[in-house]
Amino acid sequence: MEKYCLGIDIGGTSVKFGLFDMDGALLEKWSIPTNIEQNGIHILPDIAASVNSKLKNRKITPEQVSGAGVGVPGQVAEDGTILFAENLGWVHVPLTRELSRMTGLSVQAENDANLAALGEIWQGSAENCHSMIFVTLGTGIGCGIVMKDKILSGANGAAGEIGHMHIEDNMTEQCNCGKYGCLEQLASATGLRRLGKMELEASEEPSLLRRSEVSAKTIFEAVKKKDALAIRVAEKFGEYLGKALANCTCVLNPEIVVIGGGVSKAGVVVLEYIQKYYRQYAYPPCVDTEFRLAALGSDAGIYGGAKLVIEEN
Amino acid sequence: MEKYCLGIDIGGTSVKFGLFDMDGALLEKWSIPTNIEQNGIHILPDIAASVNSKLKNRKITPEQVSGAGVGVPGQVAEDGTILFAENLGWVHVPLTRELSRMTGLSVQAENDANLAALGEIWQGSAENCHSMIFVTLGTGIGCGIVMKDKILSGANGAAGEIGHMHIEDNMTEQCNCGKYGCLEQLASATGLRRLGKMELEASEEPSLLRRSEVSAKTIFEAVKKKDALAIRVAEKFGEYLGKALANCTCVLNPEIVVIGGGVSKAGVVVLEYIQKYYRQYAYPPCVDTEFRLAALGSDAGIYGGAKLVIEEN
Repeated sequence: MEKYCLGIDIGGTSVKFGLFDMDGALLEKWSIPTNIEQNGIHILPDIAASVNSKLKNRKITPEQVSGAGVGVPGQVAEDGTILFAENLGWVHVPLTRELSRMTGLSVQAENDANLAALGEIWQGSAENCHSMIFVTLGTGIGCGIVMKDKILSGANGAAGEIGHMHIEDNMTEQCNCGKYGCLEQLASATGLRRLGKMELEASEEPSLLRRSEVSAKTIFEAVKKKDALAIRVAEKFGEYLGKALANCTCVLNPEIVVIGGGVSKAGVVVLEYIQKYYRQYAYPPCVDTEFRLAALGSDAGIYGGAKLVIEEN
Repeated sequence: MEKYCLGIDIGGTSVKFGLFDMDGALLEKWSIPTNIEQNGIHILPDIAASVNSKLKNRKITPEQVSGAGVGVPGQVAEDGTILFAENLGWVHVPLTRELSRMTGLSVQAENDANLAALGEIWQGSAENCHSMIFVTLGTGIGCGIVMKDKILSGANGAAGEIGHMHIEDNMTEQCNCGKYGCLEQLASATGLRRLGKMELEASEEPSLLRRSEVSAKTIFEAVKKKDALAIRVAEKFGEYLGKALANCTCVLNPEIVVIGGGVSKAGVVVLEYIQKYYRQYAYPPCVDTEFRLAALGSDAGIYGGAKLVIEEN
């Protein structure tokens, strides 16, 4: 009877949808813009309308849909209430209850990074693994942890916030979280740009980075062309992230670390700089933990949403 | 029929035993010396002999015993083989198989720090909690993690090794693990002694610590008497451990952190120095994570062993 499930990934600019069969095959994906006006009160009705019309067009009844797994960029309580999602303007939004009422579907909610991790371990780069740390290097640093095939969400949904691990004592700029010296300030896309600018300002040394906008992309392009200044930036980035991940693996001892997000698009060179320092700082029994690049890109969240439904059935 | 279970905690100097009923009441505890001669080949036969004679004296048949949960100071594989237990001289010891053969009991094995954590969350200081980080500050630093009532052991039993988190870049002495600047080198009982001696050598400043042996005990006694030099040592200890635990809680987000081991016998003053720095470095949603002193002392392991059996039944 139940033949389908939905994975839904709510982002600050768009909401992605995936319709899956219960064997985990992606049948169709689509997206709608995220309307964050008025503290995001339109987001859930927009999602419900899109789901309802898609199902109607495909002549699928709600009874044929096993459920929807929804990823949210924020802190999710066990009862499916979103405690806080800054980019959506949400505070205490009873997502699962509301979306279930509007669609007639069973709905589960999870932090978006956790859901992406679940997607990657299910059908992505960590397929056949049972434990992983998944790190997304974008504007900020997201992280989802899977142990024994289950998301590790913590006592109040704040597990995996390695972007706010303290990593630099000499940081005078404040992080969004209110602290100083968080990993996210130094090893996200934003952090790479900051490190690049600091290095450029510290000397008059010629560099390819003086001719273009400084970004994660241009930094790693310059690294590939053996630009000495860009290489120093990549070394610093690698040391911050390698050290932080060594701190994580001695706590969690996962099978694999997967790196995704915009910065990872530069390719294996990113892993090389991270692993160089990771191996220096890692607890010896964890030194050989495997590192891979993410495989599902921005679809990881919808895969994770579907998996959340399928593993309950 | 099955009325009893056993918790067994193998240490480098003694093996502790607890006989429990299936409601978790400790009926009797006893211990025997650990014979580590000849790479510890006598340990399992000694344990079996002690168990068998105790059961015989109490007229308990093996059929009345639901099982034994055994804690080992080392790395435990999923099949119950001890991969490595340095203090016992063990390499690849098939503990569960051997002990089961010698006693006729069902046997499970677990790392000793993990088992102590399970004991504390079951009947100790973290009773009624579902997730915790348990840290023992002794000769080294042990750590057991419980998430959603289950031990987090990692892909190959190396989870919770926070004693080997890199915490000090300027460390020239090597840790037992081969690295430099591990938490254990600076915030265990051994680490406190090292910090105390460094502080004493750095100046001629009078201190109560010049009149006695420098140990965790004398350092915190001097702190309570407002000895300025001892207070500086406690501040450094607190900063190392507070920072490391902030790194842990942003990854795990547990309900509670419990501090045990010899150093914790100095009392709440230990927590005060840890929490002062913990709060400075913690990710804001985790700042209010509760800290408590361990309650079961050296019995935590036998409680954890019993719990391991009871939760399987």
